Amino acid sequence: MQLTDLAAIAGLADRLPAADESARAAALARQNALTKPPGSLGRLEDLALFMAAWRGTAQPRIARAQALVFAGNHGICAQGVNPYPQAVTAQMVANFQAGGAAINQLCRANGADLGVIALDLDRPTADFTQAPAMTPAETLEAMNRGAAAVDPTADVLILGEMGIGNSTIAAALACALFGGTPADWVGPGTGSDAPGIARKIAAIETGLARHHGLPAMATLAALGGREQAAICGAVLAARAARIPVILDGFICTAAAATLQAADPRLLDHCLVGHASAEPGHRRLIAALGKAPVLEFDMRLGEGAGAALALGILRAALECHNGMATFGEAGVAEG
Amino acid sequence: MQLTDLAAIAGLADRLPAADESARAAALARQNALTKPPGSLGRLEDLALFMAAWRGTAQPRIARAQALVFAGNHGICAQGVNPYPQAVTAQMVANFQAGGAAINQLCRANGADLGVIALDLDRPTADFTQAPAMTPAETLEAMNRGAAAVDPTADVLILGEMGIGNSTIAAALACALFGGTPADWVGPGTGSDAPGIARKIAAIETGLARHHGLPAMATLAALGGREQAAICGAVLAARAARIPVILDGFICTAAAATLQAADPRLLDHCLVGHASAEPGHRRLIAALGKAPVLEFDMRLGEGAGAALALGILRAALECHNGMATFGEAGVAEG
Repeated sequence: MQLTDLAAIAGLADRLPAADESARAAALARQNALTKPPGSLGRLEDLALFMAAWRGTAQPRIARAQALVFAGNHGICAQGVNPYPQAVTAQMVANFQAGGAAINQLCRANGADLGVIALDLDRPTADFTQAPAMTPAETLEAMNRGAAAVDPTADVLILGEMGIGNSTIAAALACALFGGTPADWVGPGTGSDAPGIARKIAAIETGLARHHGLPAMATLAALGGREQAAICGAVLAARAARIPVILDGFICTAAAATLQAADPRLLDHCLVGHASAEPGHRRLIAALGKAPVLEFDMRLGEGAGAALALGILRAALECHNGMATFGEAGVAEG
Repeated sequence: MQLTDLAAIAGLADRLPAADESARAAALARQNALTKPPGSLGRLEDLALFMAAWRGTAQPRIARAQALVFAGNHGICAQGVNPYPQAVTAQMVANFQAGGAAINQLCRANGADLGVIALDLDRPTADFTQAPAMTPAETLEAMNRGAAAVDPTADVLILGEMGIGNSTIAAALACALFGGTPADWVGPGTGSDAPGIARKIAAIETGLARHHGLPAMATLAALGGREQAAICGAVLAARAARIPVILDGFICTAAAATLQAADPRLLDHCLVGHASAEPGHRRLIAALGKAPVLEFDMRLGEGAGAALALGILRAALECHNGMATFGEAGVAEG
């Protein structure tokens, strides 16, 4: 997939694959024949049907799970929106590469291959209070890097991010796309105190005054960052390959939400892995009409909540594929 | 552990091990040194600390996870409380032994060794509307069978049950122990319709009129079944070996709740793996002061929700033990 025009992205919804409803129906028939009261596996059944519809088969399996973490740096840090130095982005990328972060452990525990993609960390985006964060060309470049990172042979894709300052990016995007005030969407992020939160709100107010009334993908360019654009590119490339996606927390979801704002169908193949403790995330999930897989009060990013949800998805498919039917087991159906 | 006197069980709380608060404090110090904002792994951090406190070490590991499913049959089925024939209990036990049930898949997915213990299925307990379900001797025998099944070398124990009619047993126990009316605790179980639910309520009303004002463990004998007693025995044997327990849904939790009613400390080493869709479970969890690990609208029993929660517990410990500290990774602490 090569993206060449931000304005054309909304139109991709007409050309990309849709859910396979016959596969979903076949999976439902199987669920109802398994040795359990119908519906008694609750959301595990829903997850199995979701996978069936997107993989286009009644008995989907996860042979390969890919996790991608995109990292970027942000000019908005000049406004004092984050208590950590911007150098931490590169330090955490090194930690991901060395295997020391939470996402490494969660990918190992749940059987995902982790790829870490640092996007020009030494060249932060522009401060959106002063100018558009990215040009259209920079945005497309980052989207294409995200798209190119997707393994088309994967059965599921976990997405995450790292970028000091990017909870401010997420709140700005969410506010621009879904309305409300900046204060509705801003939280402590990695650990801002009250003055830090006030600086985040002020920066977003200034940015929204400068960049308003734009189409969704132009909003991504004006307020977003490279890791946000890369997430969007990866979501689209996954859709082209019928690969279901598990989004992570507030920042990852806000990035992908630009696609849903462009066309509501573009996130139909995406789950939200967890509801973050970052307060804007619940509001954002509600705006997207999604139900999070897990609620664990996590607020780390990195794809950690999405990788945790992968374990649940695997369990759902183990039940779906491995259980005996009433007929096979000789159990009375009541 | 050999239990010989129902009246003496409450007193075990004074002699059984308690949580190791120094191990918990050491685990918390480790969590706060790991490469993440403090607290950002949310409930995964709580789970790691819980495991540390009960295993008595700052870095607990799960080398062996044991799952035990106890099965029993119930005289209360004579009151028409369940739409399935009682023979399904033995059929499902055979399904567990053949590997075809949900619990088999979930144990394999999350690395637990499953043991299935059928408790005199051809000899149902008495109909509690007519007589005490079990004698004290029968109750102790089932408790001791549960206790004997626990592997003292396990690092965590998952408990589940199977028994046609036992959601009525659970509601009766919960109502006797925690008050309210039978209707507050009764739900559809495996799939009762409105007349079936009315029969469940009527049976419990009759049973509670016959057996009331009893101490907690005598209530277990009067209203419970063998799998409920076995669960209690297993919970106590696990405590003796400092093995944390993951309880499953309504029926498993109601069984163990008799111990908490006997002495509130007796379930301190137990997690509730999930909040079941069976409506009485949320009320019961609240009465016990527990927070469920997962909320997934499951209502299967078998230990399925507890086994799913084991995967989360494993992920929590992978992060706790595998992550680098700020010092090890060279990441600035902000």
